[in-house]
Amino acid sequence: MRIVSFEHEGQSRVGIKTNKGVIDLSTAAPHLPQDLQQLLQAGHNLSELLHPLVEQASDEDYTPLTELVYLPVVPNPPKIICIGRNYAAHAVEGGAEPPTYPEIFLRGAESLIGHAAPIVRPRCSDKLDYEGEIAAIIGKKARHVSEEDGLDYIAGYALFNDATLRDYQRKSSQWTIGKNFDGTGAFGPEFVTADELPAGMKGVQLQTRLNGEIMQNANTDDFIFPMHKLIAILSECMTLLPGDVIITGTPAGVGYVRNPPVFMKQGDIVEVEAQGLGVLKNTIQDE
Amino acid sequence: MRIVSFEHEGQSRVGIKTNKGVIDLSTAAPHLPQDLQQLLQAGHNLSELLHPLVEQASDEDYTPLTELVYLPVVPNPPKIICIGRNYAAHAVEGGAEPPTYPEIFLRGAESLIGHAAPIVRPRCSDKLDYEGEIAAIIGKKARHVSEEDGLDYIAGYALFNDATLRDYQRKSSQWTIGKNFDGTGAFGPEFVTADELPAGMKGVQLQTRLNGEIMQNANTDDFIFPMHKLIAILSECMTLLPGDVIITGTPAGVGYVRNPPVFMKQGDIVEVEAQGLGVLKNTIQDE
Repeated sequence: MRIVSFEHEGQSRVGIKTNKGVIDLSTAAPHLPQDLQQLLQAGHNLSELLHPLVEQASDEDYTPLTELVYLPVVPNPPKIICIGRNYAAHAVEGGAEPPTYPEIFLRGAESLIGHAAPIVRPRCSDKLDYEGEIAAIIGKKARHVSEEDGLDYIAGYALFNDATLRDYQRKSSQWTIGKNFDGTGAFGPEFVTADELPAGMKGVQLQTRLNGEIMQNANTDDFIFPMHKLIAILSECMTLLPGDVIITGTPAGVGYVRNPPVFMKQGDIVEVEAQGLGVLKNTIQDE
Repeated sequence: MRIVSFEHEGQSRVGIKTNKGVIDLSTAAPHLPQDLQQLLQAGHNLSELLHPLVEQASDEDYTPLTELVYLPVVPNPPKIICIGRNYAAHAVEGGAEPPTYPEIFLRGAESLIGHAAPIVRPRCSDKLDYEGEIAAIIGKKARHVSEEDGLDYIAGYALFNDATLRDYQRKSSQWTIGKNFDGTGAFGPEFVTADELPAGMKGVQLQTRLNGEIMQNANTDDFIFPMHKLIAILSECMTLLPGDVIITGTPAGVGYVRNPPVFMKQGDIVEVEAQGLGVLKNTIQDE
Protein backbone atom coordinates (compact mmCIF):
# COMPACT_ATOMS: atom_id res chain seq x y z
CA MET A 1 0.00 0.00 0.00
CA ARG A 2 1.26 3.48 -0.89
CA ILE A 3 -0.02 6.41 1.14
CA VAL A 4 0.41 10.12 0.43
CA SER A 5 -0.09 13.19 2.56
CA PHE A 6 -1.24 16.10 0.45
CA GLU A 7 -2.83 19.52 0.62
CA HIS A 8 -6.27 20.29 -0.65
CA GLU A 9 -7.72 23.79 -0.34
CA GLY A 10 -5.33 24.62 2.50
CA GLN A 11 -6.13 21.46 4.44
CA SER A 12 -3.91 18.49 5.15
CA ARG A 13 -5.27 15.25 3.66
CA VAL A 14 -4.19 11.66 3.43
CA GLY A 15 -4.89 9.26 0.58
CA ILE A 16 -4.08 5.94 -1.05
CA LYS A 17 -1.92 6.24 -4.14
CA THR A 18 -2.85 3.97 -7.05
CA ASN A 19 -2.09 4.00 -10.76
CA LYS A 20 -5.47 5.67 -11.35
CA GLY A 21 -4.81 8.51 -8.89
CA VAL A 22 -5.16 9.14 -5.18
CA ILE A 23 -8.14 7.92 -3.17
CA ASP A 24 -8.82 10.78 -0.75
CA LEU A 25 -9.69 9.32 2.68
CA SER A 26 -11.72 12.40 3.58
CA THR A 27 -14.36 11.29 1.06
CA ALA A 28 -13.67 7.54 0.80
CA ALA A 29 -13.36 6.91 4.56
CA PRO A 30 -14.40 9.99 6.54
CA HIS A 31 -14.69 7.89 9.73
CA LEU A 32 -10.90 7.31 9.77
CA PRO A 33 -8.28 9.74 11.17
CA GLN A 34 -7.27 12.05 8.30
CA ASP A 35 -3.59 12.04 9.13
CA LEU A 36 -0.91 9.36 8.69
CA GLN A 37 0.45 9.75 12.20
CA GLN A 38 -3.01 9.38 13.70
CA LEU A 39 -3.76 6.38 11.48
CA LEU A 40 -0.62 4.71 12.81
CA GLN A 41 -1.36 5.81 16.36
CA ALA A 42 -4.78 4.14 16.19
CA GLY A 43 -2.86 0.89 15.75
CA HIS A 44 -4.03 0.15 12.26
CA ASN A 45 -2.42 -2.34 9.90
CA LEU A 46 -2.68 0.08 7.01
CA SER A 47 -2.48 -2.53 4.26
CA GLU A 48 -5.39 -4.51 5.74
CA LEU A 49 -7.39 -1.43 6.66
CA LEU A 50 -7.12 0.36 3.32
CA HIS A 51 -7.23 -2.56 0.89
CA PRO A 52 -11.06 -2.74 0.81
CA LEU A 53 -11.19 1.01 0.00
CA VAL A 54 -9.17 0.43 -3.16
CA GLU A 55 -11.60 -2.28 -4.25
CA GLN A 56 -14.67 -0.15 -3.49
CA ALA A 57 -13.41 3.17 -4.89
CA SER A 58 -15.53 4.73 -7.59
CA ASP A 59 -14.17 7.10 -10.22
CA GLU A 60 -15.12 10.26 -8.31
CA ASP A 61 -13.07 9.16 -5.29
CA TYR A 62 -9.84 9.69 -7.26
CA THR A 63 -7.72 12.86 -7.29
CA PRO A 64 -5.46 12.88 -10.37
CA LEU A 65 -1.76 12.53 -9.49
CA THR A 66 -0.93 15.55 -11.64
CA GLU A 67 -2.98 17.81 -9.36
CA LEU A 68 -1.35 16.60 -6.17
CA VAL A 69 0.33 19.08 -3.79
CA TYR A 70 2.49 16.77 -1.69
CA LEU A 71 3.06 17.30 2.01
CA PRO A 72 5.83 15.65 4.03
CA VAL A 73 4.97 11.94 4.27
CA VAL A 74 4.26 12.39 7.98
CA PRO A 75 3.53 16.13 8.26
CA ASN A 76 4.06 16.41 12.01
CA PRO A 77 6.06 13.50 13.44
CA PRO A 78 6.52 13.36 17.23
CA LYS A 79 10.27 12.87 16.64
CA ILE A 80 12.54 12.94 13.59
CA ILE A 81 15.66 11.01 14.55
CA CYS A 82 18.58 11.31 12.16
CA ILE A 83 21.47 8.88 11.97
CA GLY A 84 24.82 10.19 10.75
CA ARG A 85 27.58 8.22 9.02
CA ASN A 86 25.68 4.94 8.70
CA TYR A 87 27.09 3.80 5.36
CA ALA A 88 30.59 2.38 5.73
CA ALA A 89 31.95 4.22 2.68
CA HIS A 90 30.44 7.61 3.68
CA ALA A 91 31.63 7.22 7.25
CA VAL A 92 35.24 7.34 6.09
CA GLU A 93 34.93 9.92 3.28
CA GLY A 94 34.74 12.75 5.84
CA GLY A 95 37.99 11.45 7.34
CA ALA A 96 36.54 9.76 10.41
CA GLU A 97 36.76 6.16 11.62
CA PRO A 98 33.56 4.10 11.19
CA PRO A 99 31.50 4.64 14.35
CA THR A 100 30.88 1.98 17.00
CA TYR A 101 27.67 3.76 18.06
CA PRO A 102 25.54 5.79 15.66
CA GLU A 103 25.76 9.54 15.44
CA ILE A 104 22.27 10.69 16.42
CA PHE A 105 20.63 14.10 16.13
CA LEU A 106 17.10 15.41 15.75
CA ARG A 107 15.25 17.47 13.19
CA GLY A 108 12.26 19.66 14.00
CA ALA A 109 9.04 19.14 12.05
CA GLU A 110 9.03 22.70 10.64
CA SER A 111 12.14 21.91 8.63
CA LEU A 112 10.13 19.37 6.58
CA ILE A 113 8.79 19.81 3.05
CA GLY A 114 7.07 17.41 0.68
CA HIS A 115 7.93 15.96 -2.71
CA ALA A 116 8.15 18.63 -5.44
CA ALA A 117 8.26 21.51 -2.93
CA PRO A 118 11.34 23.75 -3.12
CA ILE A 119 14.32 23.11 -0.89
CA VAL A 120 15.23 26.55 0.43
CA ARG A 121 18.78 27.86 0.17
CA PRO A 122 18.88 30.43 2.98
CA ARG A 123 20.21 33.97 2.69
CA CYS A 124 22.99 33.33 5.16
CA SER A 125 24.75 30.40 3.48
CA ASP A 126 25.66 29.06 0.04
CA LYS A 127 26.87 25.72 1.43
CA LEU A 128 23.66 23.75 0.82
CA ASP A 129 24.39 20.05 0.33
CA TYR A 130 22.18 17.04 -0.43
CA GLU A 131 21.98 13.81 1.59
CA GLY A 132 19.80 11.13 0.06
CA GLU A 133 18.44 8.78 2.72
CA ILE A 134 15.84 6.13 3.50
CA ALA A 135 13.35 7.00 6.24
CA ALA A 136 11.75 4.34 8.43
CA ILE A 137 8.39 5.24 9.98
CA ILE A 138 7.48 3.73 13.35
CA GLY A 139 4.16 1.86 13.54
CA LYS A 140 3.86 1.07 17.22
CA LYS A 141 5.25 2.18 20.55
CA ALA A 142 8.73 0.74 21.05
CA ARG A 143 10.81 0.62 24.23
CA HIS A 144 13.53 -1.93 25.03
CA VAL A 145 13.00 -3.80 21.78
CA SER A 146 15.52 -6.51 20.87
CA GLU A 147 17.34 -6.54 17.53
CA GLU A 148 15.39 -9.70 16.62
CA ASP A 149 12.06 -7.91 17.04
CA GLY A 150 13.21 -4.53 15.69
CA LEU A 151 11.59 -4.70 12.26
CA ASP A 152 8.14 -5.44 13.79
CA TYR A 153 7.99 -1.79 14.87
CA ILE A 154 8.53 -0.27 11.44
CA ALA A 155 5.26 0.38 9.60
CA GLY A 156 6.84 1.48 6.33
CA TYR A 157 9.45 3.51 4.52
CA ALA A 158 9.89 6.64 2.43
CA LEU A 159 12.69 8.72 0.93
CA PHE A 160 14.35 11.69 2.57
CA ASN A 161 16.75 14.40 1.50
CA ASP A 162 18.48 15.58 4.69
CA ALA A 163 19.68 18.80 3.03
CA THR A 164 22.39 20.40 5.15
CA LEU A 165 24.08 23.78 5.46
CA ARG A 166 27.65 22.52 5.81
CA ASP A 167 29.08 25.73 7.28
CA TYR A 168 26.39 25.86 9.97
CA GLN A 169 26.79 22.12 10.64
CA ARG A 170 30.44 22.84 11.51
CA LYS A 171 30.05 26.12 13.40
CA SER A 172 30.18 24.10 16.61
CA SER A 173 30.71 20.44 17.50
CA GLN A 174 26.98 19.77 17.23
CA TRP A 175 25.53 19.37 13.73
CA THR A 176 21.90 20.06 14.64
CA ILE A 177 21.58 23.67 13.47
CA GLY A 178 22.97 22.87 10.00
CA LYS A 179 20.25 20.21 9.71
CA ASN A 180 17.32 22.33 10.87
CA PHE A 181 16.98 25.23 8.48
CA ASP A 182 13.43 25.92 7.35
CA GLY A 183 12.49 24.05 4.18
CA THR A 184 15.47 21.70 4.03
CA GLY A 185 14.12 18.28 5.02
CA ALA A 186 12.46 16.81 1.93
CA PHE A 187 10.33 13.81 2.88
CA GLY A 188 8.43 11.93 0.22
CA PRO A 189 7.00 11.23 -2.20
CA GLU A 190 4.95 8.64 -0.32
CA PHE A 191 4.78 6.16 2.51
CA VAL A 192 5.15 2.54 1.37
CA THR A 193 4.02 -0.13 3.81
CA ALA A 194 6.78 -2.50 4.92
CA ASP A 195 4.96 -5.56 3.52
CA GLU A 196 5.63 -4.35 -0.02
CA LEU A 197 9.38 -3.98 0.51
CA PRO A 198 12.38 -6.17 1.39
CA ALA A 199 12.62 -6.84 5.14
CA GLY A 200 14.52 -3.94 6.73
CA MET A 201 15.07 -2.50 3.20
CA LYS A 202 17.96 -4.94 2.90
CA GLY A 203 19.80 -5.02 -0.42
CA VAL A 204 18.14 -1.87 -1.75
CA GLN A 205 19.98 0.50 -4.07
CA LEU A 206 19.77 4.19 -3.08
CA GLN A 207 20.70 6.91 -5.54
CA THR A 208 20.92 10.72 -5.42
CA ARG A 209 21.08 12.72 -8.63
CA LEU A 210 21.85 16.42 -9.00
CA ASN A 211 20.66 17.87 -12.32
CA GLY A 212 20.57 14.31 -13.65
CA GLU A 213 24.11 13.40 -12.63
CA ILE A 214 24.51 10.49 -10.20
CA MET A 215 26.13 11.85 -7.02
CA GLN A 216 25.38 9.08 -4.50
CA ASN A 217 24.81 5.45 -5.40
CA ALA A 218 24.99 2.82 -2.71
CA ASN A 219 23.32 -0.28 -1.39
CA THR A 220 21.78 -0.58 2.06
CA ASP A 221 23.94 -3.69 2.52
CA ASP A 222 26.62 -1.08 3.32
CA PHE A 223 24.68 -0.02 6.47
CA ILE A 224 26.84 -0.06 9.59
CA PHE A 225 23.69 -0.10 11.74
CA PRO A 226 20.86 -1.83 9.83
CA MET A 227 17.22 -0.99 10.58
CA HIS A 228 16.66 -3.70 13.22
CA LYS A 229 19.76 -2.59 15.14
CA LEU A 230 18.70 1.06 15.03
CA ILE A 231 15.36 0.20 16.63
CA ALA A 232 17.15 -1.70 19.40
CA ILE A 233 19.73 1.06 19.96
CA LEU A 234 17.21 3.90 20.05
CA SER A 235 14.54 2.08 22.07
CA GLU A 236 17.12 1.32 24.77
CA CYS A 237 17.09 5.05 25.51
CA MET A 238 13.72 6.45 24.51
CA THR A 239 10.19 5.44 23.65
CA LEU A 240 9.61 5.43 19.91
CA LEU A 241 6.06 6.45 19.03
CA PRO A 242 3.81 5.75 16.03
CA GLY A 243 4.67 8.33 13.40
CA ASP A 244 8.24 8.84 14.62
CA VAL A 245 10.65 8.97 11.72
CA ILE A 246 14.16 7.52 11.63
CA ILE A 247 16.34 8.95 8.86
CA THR A 248 18.85 6.18 8.43
CA GLY A 249 21.91 7.99 7.12
CA THR A 250 23.41 8.97 3.79
CA PRO A 251 25.95 7.10 1.63
CA ALA A 252 29.23 8.39 0.17
CA GLY A 253 29.22 11.08 -2.48
CA VAL A 254 27.98 14.18 -0.68
CA GLY A 255 28.93 17.50 -2.24
CA TYR A 256 31.21 19.11 0.32
CA VAL A 257 33.91 16.42 0.21
CA ARG A 258 34.19 16.53 -3.58
CA ASN A 259 37.09 18.26 -5.27
CA PRO A 260 36.03 20.91 -6.09
CA PRO A 261 33.11 20.91 -3.60
CA VAL A 262 29.60 20.86 -5.06
CA PHE A 263 26.83 22.87 -3.42
CA MET A 264 23.25 23.27 -4.56
CA LYS A 265 22.04 26.58 -5.99
CA GLN A 266 18.86 28.20 -7.26
CA GLY A 267 17.19 26.10 -9.98
CA ASP A 268 19.12 22.88 -9.32
CA ILE A 269 17.04 19.72 -9.39
CA VAL A 270 17.85 17.06 -6.82
CA GLU A 271 16.37 13.57 -6.91
CA VAL A 272 16.58 10.71 -4.43
CA GLU A 273 15.51 7.27 -5.61
CA ALA A 274 15.38 3.80 -4.10
CA GLN A 275 13.85 0.58 -5.33
CA GLY A 276 10.23 0.41 -4.26
CA LEU A 277 10.11 3.95 -2.85
CA GLY A 278 9.83 5.96 -6.06
CA VAL A 279 11.64 9.22 -6.70
CA LEU A 280 11.75 12.22 -4.36
CA LYS A 281 12.35 15.27 -6.53
CA ASN A 282 12.89 18.85 -5.38
CA THR A 283 14.13 22.06 -6.92
CA ILE A 284 16.41 24.47 -5.08
CA GLN A 285 15.04 27.94 -4.47
CA ASP A 286 16.80 30.91 -2.90
CA GLU A 287 15.10 32.23 0.21
CA MET B 1 1.53 36.02 36.08
CA ARG B 2 2.48 32.44 36.98
CA ILE B 3 0.95 29.64 34.94
CA VAL B 4 1.08 25.90 35.66
CA SER B 5 0.32 22.90 33.51
CA PHE B 6 -1.07 20.09 35.62
CA GLU B 7 -2.90 16.80 35.46
CA HIS B 8 -6.42 16.32 36.72
CA GLU B 9 -8.14 12.94 36.43
CA GLY B 10 -5.84 11.92 33.59
CA GLN B 11 -6.37 15.14 31.65
CA SER B 12 -3.91 17.92 30.94
CA ARG B 13 -5.00 21.26 32.43
CA VAL B 14 -3.62 24.75 32.67
CA GLY B 15 -4.12 27.19 35.50
CA ILE B 16 -3.04 30.43 37.14
CA LYS B 17 -0.92 29.95 40.23
CA THR B 18 -1.66 32.27 43.14
CA ASN B 19 -0.91 32.19 46.84
CA LYS B 20 -4.41 30.80 47.45
CA GLY B 21 -3.97 27.92 44.98
CA VAL B 22 -4.40 27.33 41.28
CA ILE B 23 -7.27 28.79 39.27
CA ASP B 24 -8.18 26.01 36.84
CA LEU B 25 -8.92 27.53 33.42
CA SER B 26 -11.19 24.64 32.50
CA THR B 27 -13.73 25.94 35.04
CA ALA B 28 -12.74 29.62 35.31
CA ALA B 29 -12.38 30.25 31.54
CA PRO B 30 -13.68 27.25 29.56
CA HIS B 31 -13.78 29.35 26.37
CA LEU B 32 -9.96 29.64 26.32
CA PRO B 33 -7.55 27.00 24.92
CA GLN B 34 -6.74 24.63 27.78
CA ASP B 35 -3.06 24.30 26.95
CA LEU B 36 -0.18 26.77 27.40
CA GLN B 37 1.14 26.26 23.86
CA GLN B 38 -2.28 26.93 22.38
CA LEU B 39 -2.78 29.97 24.60
CA LEU B 40 0.49 31.38 23.28
CA GLN B 41 -0.33 30.35 19.72
CA ALA B 42 -3.60 32.29 19.90
CA GLY B 43 -1.42 35.36 20.35
CA HIS B 44 -2.52 36.22 23.84
CA ASN B 45 -0.72 38.56 26.18
CA LEU B 46 -1.16 36.18 29.08
CA SER B 47 -0.77 38.76 31.83
CA GLU B 48 -3.50 40.96 30.37
CA LEU B 49 -5.74 38.06 29.45
CA LEU B 50 -5.60 36.25 32.77
CA HIS B 51 -5.48 39.16 35.21
CA PRO B 52 -9.28 39.64 35.31
CA LEU B 53 -9.72 35.95 36.11
CA VAL B 54 -7.66 36.35 39.26
CA GLU B 55 -9.87 39.25 40.36
CA GLN B 56 -13.09 37.37 39.60
CA ALA B 57 -12.11 33.95 40.99
CA SER B 58 -14.36 32.55 43.69
CA ASP B 59 -13.22 30.08 46.33
CA GLU B 60 -14.43 27.02 44.38
CA ASP B 61 -12.27 27.94 41.38
CA TYR B 62 -9.11 27.15 43.36
CA THR B 63 -7.26 23.84 43.39
CA PRO B 64 -5.00 23.64 46.46
CA LEU B 65 -1.30 23.68 45.58
CA THR B 66 -0.72 20.60 47.72
CA GLU B 67 -2.93 18.51 45.44
CA LEU B 68 -1.21 19.58 42.24
CA VAL B 69 0.26 16.97 39.88
CA TYR B 70 2.61 19.10 37.77
CA LEU B 71 3.14 18.51 34.05
CA PRO B 72 6.04 19.95 32.04
CA VAL B 73 5.47 23.72 31.81
CA VAL B 74 4.72 23.33 28.09
CA PRO B 75 3.70 19.66 27.82
CA ASN B 76 4.20 19.33 24.06
CA PRO B 77 6.42 22.08 22.63
CA PRO B 78 6.91 22.17 18.84
CA LYS B 79 10.67 22.34 19.44
CA ILE B 80 12.92 22.10 22.49
CA ILE B 81 16.20 23.76 21.52
CA CYS B 82 19.09 23.24 23.90
CA ILE B 83 22.18 25.42 24.10
CA GLY B 84 25.41 23.86 25.33
CA ARG B 85 28.31 25.58 27.06
CA ASN B 86 26.67 28.99 27.38
CA TYR B 87 28.18 30.03 30.71
CA ALA B 88 31.79 31.14 30.35
CA ALA B 89 33.00 29.18 33.39
CA HIS B 90 31.22 25.95 32.39
CA ALA B 91 32.45 26.24 28.82
CA VAL B 92 36.02 25.84 29.99
CA GLU B 93 35.51 23.29 32.82
CA GLY B 94 35.08 20.52 30.22
CA GLY B 95 38.45 21.52 28.74
CA ALA B 96 37.11 23.35 25.68
CA GLU B 97 37.63 26.91 24.47
CA PRO B 98 34.61 29.23 24.88
CA PRO B 99 32.51 28.84 21.73
CA THR B 100 32.10 31.53 19.07
CA TYR B 101 28.76 30.02 18.01
CA PRO B 102 26.49 28.17 20.42
CA GLU B 103 26.38 24.40 20.62
CA ILE B 104 22.81 23.54 19.66
CA PHE B 105 20.90 20.28 19.95
CA LEU B 106 17.27 19.26 20.32
CA ARG B 107 15.26 17.35 22.90
CA GLY B 108 12.10 15.41 22.09
CA ALA B 109 8.92 16.19 24.03
CA GLU B 110 8.62 12.65 25.45
CA SER B 111 11.79 13.19 27.45
CA LEU B 112 10.00 15.88 29.51
CA ILE B 113 8.64 15.56 33.04
CA GLY B 114 7.12 18.08 35.40
CA HIS B 115 8.09 19.45 38.79
CA ALA B 116 8.09 16.77 41.52
CA ALA B 117 7.97 13.91 39.00
CA PRO B 118 10.85 11.43 39.19
CA ILE B 119 13.89 11.83 36.96
CA VAL B 120 14.49 8.31 35.65
CA ARG B 121 17.93 6.72 35.91
CA PRO B 122 17.83 4.14 33.10
CA ARG B 123 18.86 0.49 33.38
CA CYS B 124 21.68 0.92 30.92
CA SER B 125 23.67 3.70 32.59
CA ASP B 126 24.68 4.96 36.03
CA LYS B 127 26.17 8.19 34.64
CA LEU B 128 23.14 10.41 35.25
CA ASP B 129 24.18 14.04 35.74
CA TYR B 130 22.23 17.23 36.50
CA GLU B 131 22.29 20.44 34.48
CA GLY B 132 20.31 23.30 36.01
CA GLU B 133 19.16 25.77 33.37
CA ILE B 134 16.79 28.61 32.58
CA ALA B 135 14.24 27.94 29.82
CA ALA B 136 12.86 30.73 27.63
CA ILE B 137 9.43 30.12 26.10
CA ILE B 138 8.65 31.69 22.74
CA GLY B 139 5.50 33.81 22.55
CA LYS B 140 5.24 34.64 18.87
CA LYS B 141 6.54 33.43 15.54
CA ALA B 142 10.13 34.56 15.03
CA ARG B 143 12.22 34.54 11.84
CA HIS B 144 15.13 36.83 11.05
CA VAL B 145 14.78 38.74 14.30
CA SER B 146 17.49 41.23 15.21
CA GLU B 147 19.32 41.12 18.54
CA GLU B 148 17.63 44.42 19.45
CA ASP B 149 14.17 42.90 19.05
CA GLY B 150 15.02 39.44 20.37
CA LEU B 151 13.44 39.77 23.81
CA ASP B 152 10.06 40.78 22.30
CA TYR B 153 9.61 37.15 21.21
CA ILE B 154 10.04 35.60 24.65
CA ALA B 155 6.73 35.20 26.48
CA GLY B 156 8.20 33.97 29.73
CA TYR B 157 10.63 31.75 31.55
CA ALA B 158 10.82 28.59 33.65
CA LEU B 159 13.43 26.30 35.16
CA PHE B 160 14.84 23.20 33.49
CA ASN B 161 17.02 20.30 34.58
CA ASP B 162 18.63 18.98 31.39
CA ALA B 163 19.58 15.67 33.04
CA THR B 164 22.14 13.86 30.92
CA LEU B 165 23.54 10.35 30.61
CA ARG B 166 27.20 11.30 30.25
CA ASP B 167 28.36 7.99 28.78
CA TYR B 168 25.66 8.10 26.09
CA GLN B 169 26.37 11.78 25.43
CA ARG B 170 29.94 10.77 24.55
CA LYS B 171 29.30 7.52 22.66
CA SER B 172 29.58 9.54 19.46
CA SER B 173 30.41 13.13 18.56
CA GLN B 174 26.73 14.12 18.83
CA TRP B 175 25.33 14.65 22.34
CA THR B 176 21.67 14.24 21.43
CA ILE B 177 21.04 10.67 22.59
CA GLY B 178 22.49 11.34 26.06
CA LYS B 179 20.02 14.21 26.37
CA ASN B 180 16.91 12.35 25.22
CA PHE B 181 16.35 9.49 27.60
CA ASP B 182 12.75 9.08 28.71
CA GLY B 183 11.97 11.01 31.89
CA THR B 184 15.14 13.11 32.06
CA GLY B 185 14.07 16.63 31.07
CA ALA B 186 12.55 18.23 34.16
CA PHE B 187 10.66 21.41 33.20
CA GLY B 188 8.94 23.42 35.87
CA PRO B 189 7.56 24.25 38.26
CA GLU B 190 5.74 27.02 36.41
CA PHE B 191 5.76 29.49 33.57
CA VAL B 192 6.44 33.07 34.72
CA THR B 193 5.53 35.81 32.28
CA ALA B 194 8.47 37.95 31.16
CA ASP B 195 6.91 41.15 32.56
CA GLU B 196 7.50 39.88 36.12
CA LEU B 197 11.20 39.21 35.58
CA PRO B 198 14.37 41.16 34.71
CA ALA B 199 14.66 41.80 30.94
CA GLY B 200 16.31 38.76 29.36
CA MET B 201 16.74 37.29 32.87
CA LYS B 202 19.83 39.46 33.19
CA GLY B 203 21.66 39.38 36.50
CA VAL B 204 19.75 36.39 37.84
CA GLN B 205 21.38 33.88 40.16
CA LEU B 206 20.86 30.22 39.16
CA GLN B 207 21.58 27.43 41.62
CA THR B 208 21.47 23.62 41.48
CA ARG B 209 21.47 21.60 44.70
CA LEU B 210 21.94 17.86 45.08
CA ASN B 211 20.65 16.51 48.38
CA GLY B 212 20.83 20.06 49.71
CA GLU B 213 24.45 20.68 48.70
CA ILE B 214 25.09 23.54 46.27
CA MET B 215 26.59 22.07 43.08
CA GLN B 216 26.06 24.89 40.58
CA ASN B 217 25.81 28.56 41.48
CA ALA B 218 26.18 31.16 38.78
CA ASN B 219 24.79 34.37 37.46
CA THR B 220 23.27 34.81 34.01
CA ASP B 221 25.67 37.73 33.57
CA ASP B 222 28.13 34.91 32.75
CA PHE B 223 26.11 34.01 29.60
CA ILE B 224 28.26 33.88 26.48
CA PHE B 225 25.11 34.19 24.34
CA PRO B 226 22.44 36.15 26.26
CA MET B 227 18.75 35.61 25.49
CA HIS B 228 18.39 38.34 22.87
CA LYS B 229 21.39 36.99 20.95
CA LEU B 230 20.04 33.43 21.06
CA ILE B 231 16.78 34.57 19.45
CA ALA B 232 18.71 36.32 16.66
CA ILE B 233 21.07 33.36 16.11
CA LEU B 234 18.32 30.73 16.03
CA SER B 235 15.81 32.75 14.01
CA GLU B 236 18.44 33.31 11.31
CA CYS B 237 18.10 29.58 10.56
CA MET B 238 14.63 28.49 11.56
CA THR B 239 11.19 29.76 12.42
CA LEU B 240 10.62 29.84 16.17
CA LEU B 241 7.00 29.10 17.06
CA PRO B 242 4.82 29.99 20.05
CA GLY B 243 5.46 27.33 22.68
CA ASP B 244 8.98 26.54 21.45
CA VAL B 245 11.39 26.21 24.36
CA ILE B 246 15.00 27.36 24.45
CA ILE B 247 17.06 25.77 27.21
CA THR B 248 19.77 28.32 27.66
CA GLY B 249 22.69 26.25 28.95
CA THR B 250 24.10 25.17 32.28
CA PRO B 251 26.78 26.82 34.44
CA ALA B 252 29.95 25.28 35.89
CA GLY B 253 29.71 22.58 38.55
CA VAL B 254 28.23 19.59 36.73
CA GLY B 255 28.90 16.19 38.29
CA TYR B 256 31.04 14.43 35.75
CA VAL B 257 33.96 16.88 35.84
CA ARG B 258 34.23 16.75 39.64
CA ASN B 259 36.97 14.80 41.34
CA PRO B 260 35.70 12.24 42.14
CA PRO B 261 32.80 12.47 39.66
CA VAL B 262 29.31 12.80 41.13
CA PHE B 263 26.37 11.03 39.48
CA MET B 264 22.77 10.93 40.65
CA LYS B 265 21.31 7.74 42.07
CA GLN B 266 17.98 6.37 43.32
CA GLY B 267 16.51 8.59 46.04
CA ASP B 268 18.69 11.62 45.40
CA ILE B 269 16.90 14.96 45.47
CA VAL B 270 17.91 17.55 42.91
CA GLU B 271 16.72 21.16 42.99
CA VAL B 272 17.16 23.97 40.49
CA GLU B 273 16.38 27.49 41.70
CA ALA B 274 16.52 30.95 40.18
CA GLN B 275 15.29 34.31 41.41
CA GLY B 276 11.69 34.76 40.35
CA LEU B 277 11.25 31.27 38.92
CA GLY B 278 10.82 29.27 42.13
CA VAL B 279 12.36 25.86 42.78
CA LEU B 280 12.22 22.87 40.43
CA LYS B 281 12.57 19.79 42.60
CA ASN B 282 12.79 16.17 41.45
CA THR B 283 13.79 12.86 42.99
CA ILE B 284 15.86 10.28 41.15
CA GLN B 285 14.21 6.93 40.56
CA ASP B 286 15.70 3.83 38.97
CA GLU B 287 13.89 2.65 35.86
